[in-house]
Amino acid sequence: MPTAPRPQTLPAWQRLSALTTTLPPLRELLKDAGREQLQLSAAGVTLDYSRQAVNEAVLEQLWALADARDVMSQAQAMFRGEHINLTEDRAALHVALRGSEALNPPWGAAIAQQVQVELTRFTQFAERVRGRGLSGFQDTPITDIVNLGIGGSDLGPRLCTEALAPWARAQPAGVNVHFVSNLDAWSLHSTLAALNPARTAFVVQSKSFTTPETLLLAASARRWLQDGGCPPDRQARHLIAVTARADLAQAAGYAQDHIFQLWDWVGGRYSIWSAIGLPVAIALGAAGFRELLAGAHAMDRHFLTAPPPRNLPLMLALLGVWNINFMGSPTHAVAPYAFALARLPAYLQQLEMESNGKRTHRDGGAVAFTTAPIVWGGLGIDGQHAYYQLLHQGRHRVALDFIGVHTDPTPLPLAPEHHRTVLNNLMAQSQALAEGRDETTTRQRLMSQGLDAESAQRLAPHRTYPGNTPSNLLWLQALTPSTLGALIAMYEHKVFCQAALWDICAFDQWGVELGKTLLQSLAPSTSS
Amino acid sequence: MPTAPRPQTLPAWQRLSALTTTLPPLRELLKDAGREQLQLSAAGVTLDYSRQAVNEAVLEQLWALADARDVMSQAQAMFRGEHINLTEDRAALHVALRGSEALNPPWGAAIAQQVQVELTRFTQFAERVRGRGLSGFQDTPITDIVNLGIGGSDLGPRLCTEALAPWARAQPAGVNVHFVSNLDAWSLHSTLAALNPARTAFVVQSKSFTTPETLLLAASARRWLQDGGCPPDRQARHLIAVTARADLAQAAGYAQDHIFQLWDWVGGRYSIWSAIGLPVAIALGAAGFRELLAGAHAMDRHFLTAPPPRNLPLMLALLGVWNINFMGSPTHAVAPYAFALARLPAYLQQLEMESNGKRTHRDGGAVAFTTAPIVWGGLGIDGQHAYYQLLHQGRHRVALDFIGVHTDPTPLPLAPEHHRTVLNNLMAQSQALAEGRDETTTRQRLMSQGLDAESAQRLAPHRTYPGNTPSNLLWLQALTPSTLGALIAMYEHKVFCQAALWDICAFDQWGVELGKTLLQSLAPSTSS
Repeated sequence: MPTAPRPQTLPAWQRLSALTTTLPPLRELLKDAGREQLQLSAAGVTLDYSRQAVNEAVLEQLWALADARDVMSQAQAMFRGEHINLTEDRAALHVALRGSEALNPPWGAAIAQQVQVELTRFTQFAERVRGRGLSGFQDTPITDIVNLGIGGSDLGPRLCTEALAPWARAQPAGVNVHFVSNLDAWSLHSTLAALNPARTAFVVQSKSFTTPETLLLAASARRWLQDGGCPPDRQARHLIAVTARADLAQAAGYAQDHIFQLWDWVGGRYSIWSAIGLPVAIALGAAGFRELLAGAHAMDRHFLTAPPPRNLPLMLALLGVWNINFMGSPTHAVAPYAFALARLPAYLQQLEMESNGKRTHRDGGAVAFTTAPIVWGGLGIDGQHAYYQLLHQGRHRVALDFIGVHTDPTPLPLAPEHHRTVLNNLMAQSQALAEGRDETTTRQRLMSQGLDAESAQRLAPHRTYPGNTPSNLLWLQALTPSTLGALIAMYEHKVFCQAALWDICAFDQWGVELGKTLLQSLAPSTSS
Repeated sequence: MPTAPRPQTLPAWQRLSALTTTLPPLRELLKDAGREQLQLSAAGVTLDYSRQAVNEAVLEQLWALADARDVMSQAQAMFRGEHINLTEDRAALHVALRGSEALNPPWGAAIAQQVQVELTRFTQFAERVRGRGLSGFQDTPITDIVNLGIGGSDLGPRLCTEALAPWARAQPAGVNVHFVSNLDAWSLHSTLAALNPARTAFVVQSKSFTTPETLLLAASARRWLQDGGCPPDRQARHLIAVTARADLAQAAGYAQDHIFQLWDWVGGRYSIWSAIGLPVAIALGAAGFRELLAGAHAMDRHFLTAPPPRNLPLMLALLGVWNINFMGSPTHAVAPYAFALARLPAYLQQLEMESNGKRTHRDGGAVAFTTAPIVWGGLGIDGQHAYYQLLHQGRHRVALDFIGVHTDPTPLPLAPEHHRTVLNNLMAQSQALAEGRDETTTRQRLMSQGLDAESAQRLAPHRTYPGNTPSNLLWLQALTPSTLGALIAMYEHKVFCQAALWDICAFDQWGVELGKTLLQSLAPSTSS
């Protein structure tokens, strides 16, 4: 392929570099009138970026950069199904799973039809499981589903199941869903210890049906069924597979009507919308799962059609590039202020770091700037008693995403007070991080609290806050399948836009290969 | 206090800076004979630092830096109980909780005695709970304990309880221990939903007994007891407090024999050794909890007596400083290869970032270099399917701690195979990250797999690994109370040494104050 001009040689990139030297500190920017207009909404998600260190001049150059990098044309190519995964020569068509209308006509209809057939199959199956319509080896109903999968086969299903547990209270499933991803036997054992083999089924999730971690977990699960009295000819009742290799699953003894289809154009970290979502469909019901898809699809439509200055995923991507490549924030903290979103940081860790943790341009040239940030964080309320000290007074510049939900359906008498306090904490922290408190103010405050001048002088430096920490506030009206679908799709498109801006491949993951190669060369017993 | 020479002006610091320009890449260093000697062991923990980018010259300057910064004298001052927490004018005496012999005689004996009295009280209480000797309002035994606490009152107890669950299988408690830290009502509700008020007791952990998050959780817990039929005069049966303010707990209706003592010389993130460890003592039993203390004490003795080149916590601290301040690794990833240690990264996030996420020297001067790293990571096996892509091919230099355990007691037939594979993965990843694979080797490999020269040329850059990622391998022979205690104490002392090297205060946390101040100024209803 022809070599594109490197992003850092583009005029917009260079103008952005120059702007960093004249930009007032965030504390000053916050005084500008009209900052409350720095908001975008789409598909039930609102982004408030008024606490980002940007002004009109910066925003214009960011949009110019998106334009120079043809980001939106690249997005259209993805939606059309072009082979944008260059190093593996295939499409990245997770958007088709939630009903893209932009697919190329010749084969788009065929894909859309396959997707619909499989969606109907696995959501109907989910309803059957929810209704206790699956029977184990003793002809009693299956009451517990254990998901066996790792990476994308675990993080997405687990995030959605946990995040929507408050919502799903109103649509209770007749079964419990559990997750085991880690190969360590204790993980499987501690889950199975409370379960009854006659009433437990396993969803084995592996696109290739060769993932060693998942297959070993599945082997142990089958041994547990056997030791629990399950005769070999009834084991298939307890086994369900989600894979692109139905042939391998069938050869391993899985029943045809317990095998659900994936395709090679679905990457693991983009697969929650496919049959990999089966445990979510079981937890939510078919209608809930379709709502999740509809929320993502609404975000897709927004992303494809909104002009750059009103385009939420693109704006998130540009703000990220601004922080990472220009403002010296190589890491990105995600702080949900909703307990049900506890898994979101781990989910985004995979989505961002596995997609864009790259150092090679699409044409094979070496990248000369930072690409994916290190994504870290954790629940905001807990973080305030842990990692926030470093955010407030450490020596790192970190950009944050705060995530808040306006309503809370928890049926406890004091829940409104809990919720109000949670959201007030979110607001107070984003303000404190942005504004800080200077030494003079701190000293005066200490003296007004009764400290003598000398002590106030001595302690003030330790109790001063530099501020200038930028953050996005991402708000959901409520945590529903639809808004969660939109939130995840938003982050997917953010990651896509950043790859396009950086001119890297977001859809391969060659970084995982070398470890596997060396693993094969290790003797069967450990070397240390 | 007199101004000490800034660390970066010390000759050793400057020589270390100079050494970075001549140091061969890690891949080359690994070829040196005798690297397997880069190992230290203490109290059941082994550190293999042969995959750090250090040679004899670097190590000598690191020890010279420790010497110039008087690190070991500072450690002795901590053990003697001097007021090393300068900004709060008090001692940091968590080491006294596990039996320090170095305390200053005049008041050391008094502290040691208080500690013993309280240890005996709360471990005997734990045994009573384990034996179902606590009765609820219907005179039936308490079977479920819910820990309410946040930050240090949650992370430590939760880490130890989960990490030692495999070990505790042999000493089953008659009760279950649950943890709720987050203020979001869903966190409490989803835990309580499965519990019976008549059989549930709450451990309310708050040093000040004014932590708003914990008090609101406690208020909701009491409301739940009341709504569950508990008469007001029997509520105290279900309430246990751990606090430095027994007076406040008593005023709130807690029974005197349900209140356990903390002292102001125990910082929250160092409090697992105190009555804050009550839930751990319930999960492990009194003997197990004393073993945890004994393991930490063994590490204390090693730390105080081993010469710098054989001193494990000091070596960890110096390797961290080398990576953070000289080799361009501002973040630190923690990757446990033991499922039971899943909470360790979150625990270390607090321990490191809340202790050393500072920008002010002890004398009030501004720090000019990076202090605490951003600590992140997660279970290694899961990480390989998520964030490892960035470690292998991203644009960040990250230093890692791999943590492995030689034995696995899980009672599953295939557990030995699981465990062998887990440890082989650990070895393969640390090797792949250190050595990488260059473009020529990659191209040859692709061609040997049947790719034509042009495709191999095109794909090789995408499948090349720069390597040079340094790591510590930390090994435990087995995961027991004793080795876990030693591991945690090791990290505590590492953090202490880094604070001493950087000349900052590790034991205050003023960064949490501003958020609280702004919170008070917010209206009772949320502003967004």
